[in-house]
Amino acid sequence: MADYKVALQDMNFLLEDVFAVAKDWETMPGLQDLVDPETAKAILEEAAKLTETLIAPNSRAADEEGIHFADGVVTTPKGYKEQFAELAAGGWVGVTATPEFGGMGLPKVLSAQYEEMMCAADVSFSLYSGLTVGATIAIDSHASDELKARYLPNMVAGKWTGSMCLTEPHAGTDLGIIRSKAVPQDDGSFSVTGTKIFITGGEHDLAENIIHLVLAKLPDAPAGSRGISLFIVPKYLVNEDGSLGERNEAVAGSVEHKMGIHASATCVMNFDGAKGWLVGEPNRGLTAMFTMMNYERLGVGIQGLGSAARSYCTALDYALDRRQGRGAKATQDTSAEADPLLVHGDIRRMLLTMKSLIEGGRAFSTYVGKQLDLAKYAESEEDRVQAQALVDLLTPVAKAFLTDTGFEATIHGQQILGGHGYVREWGQEQLVRDCRIAQIYEGTNGIQALDLLGRKVAGSRGELLKPLLAEITSFLAGDAGQWERQYGELAILLQEVERITGEILGQVGSDENIINSVAVDYLNLIGYVTFAWLWLKMARTAEASNYPASFIQGKQKTAEFYFARILPRVYGLMPAIEAGSKELFAFSEDQF
Amino acid sequence: MADYKVALQDMNFLLEDVFAVAKDWETMPGLQDLVDPETAKAILEEAAKLTETLIAPNSRAADEEGIHFADGVVTTPKGYKEQFAELAAGGWVGVTATPEFGGMGLPKVLSAQYEEMMCAADVSFSLYSGLTVGATIAIDSHASDELKARYLPNMVAGKWTGSMCLTEPHAGTDLGIIRSKAVPQDDGSFSVTGTKIFITGGEHDLAENIIHLVLAKLPDAPAGSRGISLFIVPKYLVNEDGSLGERNEAVAGSVEHKMGIHASATCVMNFDGAKGWLVGEPNRGLTAMFTMMNYERLGVGIQGLGSAARSYCTALDYALDRRQGRGAKATQDTSAEADPLLVHGDIRRMLLTMKSLIEGGRAFSTYVGKQLDLAKYAESEEDRVQAQALVDLLTPVAKAFLTDTGFEATIHGQQILGGHGYVREWGQEQLVRDCRIAQIYEGTNGIQALDLLGRKVAGSRGELLKPLLAEITSFLAGDAGQWERQYGELAILLQEVERITGEILGQVGSDENIINSVAVDYLNLIGYVTFAWLWLKMARTAEASNYPASFIQGKQKTAEFYFARILPRVYGLMPAIEAGSKELFAFSEDQF
Repeated sequence: MADYKVALQDMNFLLEDVFAVAKDWETMPGLQDLVDPETAKAILEEAAKLTETLIAPNSRAADEEGIHFADGVVTTPKGYKEQFAELAAGGWVGVTATPEFGGMGLPKVLSAQYEEMMCAADVSFSLYSGLTVGATIAIDSHASDELKARYLPNMVAGKWTGSMCLTEPHAGTDLGIIRSKAVPQDDGSFSVTGTKIFITGGEHDLAENIIHLVLAKLPDAPAGSRGISLFIVPKYLVNEDGSLGERNEAVAGSVEHKMGIHASATCVMNFDGAKGWLVGEPNRGLTAMFTMMNYERLGVGIQGLGSAARSYCTALDYALDRRQGRGAKATQDTSAEADPLLVHGDIRRMLLTMKSLIEGGRAFSTYVGKQLDLAKYAESEEDRVQAQALVDLLTPVAKAFLTDTGFEATIHGQQILGGHGYVREWGQEQLVRDCRIAQIYEGTNGIQALDLLGRKVAGSRGELLKPLLAEITSFLAGDAGQWERQYGELAILLQEVERITGEILGQVGSDENIINSVAVDYLNLIGYVTFAWLWLKMARTAEASNYPASFIQGKQKTAEFYFARILPRVYGLMPAIEAGSKELFAFSEDQF
Repeated sequence: MADYKVALQDMNFLLEDVFAVAKDWETMPGLQDLVDPETAKAILEEAAKLTETLIAPNSRAADEEGIHFADGVVTTPKGYKEQFAELAAGGWVGVTATPEFGGMGLPKVLSAQYEEMMCAADVSFSLYSGLTVGATIAIDSHASDELKARYLPNMVAGKWTGSMCLTEPHAGTDLGIIRSKAVPQDDGSFSVTGTKIFITGGEHDLAENIIHLVLAKLPDAPAGSRGISLFIVPKYLVNEDGSLGERNEAVAGSVEHKMGIHASATCVMNFDGAKGWLVGEPNRGLTAMFTMMNYERLGVGIQGLGSAARSYCTALDYALDRRQGRGAKATQDTSAEADPLLVHGDIRRMLLTMKSLIEGGRAFSTYVGKQLDLAKYAESEEDRVQAQALVDLLTPVAKAFLTDTGFEATIHGQQILGGHGYVREWGQEQLVRDCRIAQIYEGTNGIQALDLLGRKVAGSRGELLKPLLAEITSFLAGDAGQWERQYGELAILLQEVERITGEILGQVGSDENIINSVAVDYLNLIGYVTFAWLWLKMARTAEASNYPASFIQGKQKTAEFYFARILPRVYGLMPAIEAGSKELFAFSEDQF
């Protein structure tokens, strides 16, 4: 495994040049005193040091060792305790948390870069703090002031961690049918009972306390998703003075044995009359949970990006070093018995596919991060509303497309190493295994596509798509320079997206199955088209910048590669979308 | 994990109806006394019983336990010894081996079905006999009569197994630079010294002896691939009377820790002056090895198919059983709190993608198997030559396309189970891990593409492509029935394939990088177009058959699905191919 090297130059290029986020910060009342370009740069450099030298070097050993479980107790791999302590001490758990509770209060656009580094360094390790951040967001957004004061400071400081307890054995995607119960007690608390599965960080030895956010039903709750409430259920009860009290009846019954993220404790959690406190309104738990999940779904997309970025480091290193076969005559190194892999066209195709998907994905996650910041911090309500619309549209795309393309990239990164990519030693296969979960959890990628096309695009009768198309169209109205062909192709593709969207919307009334039949291909279409815009934007920005020539030309050539070799995938997706639901629903059960 | 159920009906449909192989057998001098439709059917049924009830049920436990290694000794997982003994006793190692040495002498077209079952049941386990078969083919084709008589009977009987020792630490794809040496001895044997890595079944406890086929260089060998010879190096020397003698200096130094196929022993083999015997001509070892590898590459393609077929069993079972969410109003089961997954469009899309790729792949492997049989057994030389041309063309496609589509299918099969697909319990993630190696070993899929487009298509100036196109064109000239649209689309695609092939051939003289830059996309194009033909062939054949209505309609509807949702991928591949090498070779090293 090659050393992990953070793509700092690319991150700074995106923040400073492509998206000019410092200009946003200057105008934002909630950010202008907390962050400026110098601070941002210093934070990214510190984060790079932390992830490159402390976390990344231990990821393979941690995967190899995995977690240990005995009698309800989880022990994390060697080194994790020290790593987590250092993370907490540096304030990294609270990167985006509000300063009121001890957080750094930094914008999401910066946190997105930090999260990429954490995921690249070690997905398993990143989840312990990642879930904690998610829990703090839910509590901060929906809990009473009393609950916030009691739980947030220690969580933001990384002294306590958080978990999200949603899934039950019979209820994953369909949370409306959960069976966990919460019965009101005389003291205002609730007695929570039920079994939750797939609980990341449900139990571990990295923190003094674990604050579980648990979905459960009140005794008189309506059926389905409108009858679900959200509760705080701490592992240890917290006394009035903030000290830890009794052990609560919230216990890990077992841990899952998984394909990857071996160092992340995925627990079955048994709540047996555990003491809990209601967060937000009764029966509105799912809404509260999804506020947080929408914010955090970008983070899961970034997991895919991080795994891919790490894989690229090793794949490129290997392609430069490993010698097999001969390249074209002009490129042969006759001093050695073979040429480096990099001379071979197919190795280049795989590396550049990775590079174009990773840097495209980084631009995408930064763009969505910027919109999240605008939606939260922009001065004018109009700006906030418009950014929120883009966030609503792009969140499912970020989650699904960045994990699908990230997974594809890790597969290429493994393939480049041949047999050495299949053995554990080089770490490439771990990235494949670790990345795979990001396509599944936090709402499968199929569910994300349904969210995009059903809830967002069709739900708004296409309105929610317009700001994105308008932004790309306005970009294309600018000077094309040497990119006339690509500008022209993308302009036509935008029209195709509009046309196809219109076709789908036209069928919604008469075909109940249309959305779910074409949603995944549609999400991919939106993803590839958006990446095409981002690649042109990056190439044009790079041309006008003072970056080193190799960086500028790398951007230009990767943009050309993307249009030549990756974007054409849309010409396969469009006819598949237009085929609609007919072929899928022609089948009766016995014909499968 | 659902029970593995062999697709016997589909296999019989392909053999009897689609490819009418019994008619071939009747005319083949080498087969007519050995096999007829009744025998074939009985053999497939026996093989199904063996794989479904003996081998498949142990595959997950075997993966979980893995192999054990200590002091050069490999212990296989619980149950493997008994399984292998039963396999050997049933004569299954010698399915295709010549009766002269105790084999069943069955055609490849039947063996292909058996191999799919073995791989579906347990890829790891299948490799111990699979490599043995490969070794017997190499020995049978190239060794002296004396060596054949000494080694083949026990190998064919499964008393001894075989291994292929090609790769060295610095030489994988590029075998021309291997360093293992073979020094002639006075007694006619050779002293073989060198280190080989990634040796499947290099050491284990399933057989009394292991016959290694080792590539090494004679002292006076020319440099590069024309200076490599092939040697038999047994683990235990074999005495004149056939009994086992001294332990040879061929020892496993360690075993690899891998992403998957945990129950397959992948060894580092140290040959330290080991006694070996030359197979075939000096310096012609690579040719000898490739004769065998070309025959066996279909088998590796079938690994992808087998993993996918197994994954489909569990995915379909789960989709019928697991209830999450609600389908369209018309399909809701109001007696339960949710509908089975199968009502959801995206679940159907994934299942049908699997089904169309698996059954398309099964048809493809059967077709290539038929050509292998014709090339070997057909009465007229003309028929043999024509079949061999198809074999040469399609072998790399079978290896790469069946493993790439097989891998894609296992990913869908995992995704359908959501989080349950990621945990080990259900077995779906094991199929992903096990399938992944088939895209890498026996020549990476990139190398297969290079073989197809470079050696085969460009090497013959396009001649080798013609028989395939002619066969499809002749099919399309027949009555289209209700398939006029699909016949028309495929006819146009054939013209596109010809046009694009011509374009590439036109660039070969001026662009040394063109082949390796577009080979993978080109192989996929050929794969999808060939599958389209096979799907029409299957649909048309089914229509005219007496199979149950659900089977016939399943075939028809899957053909329609394939054309609507899968074949369009070619419209993304063609422009990518036409982009050529330019964008790939514009990059200097520092721009990656």
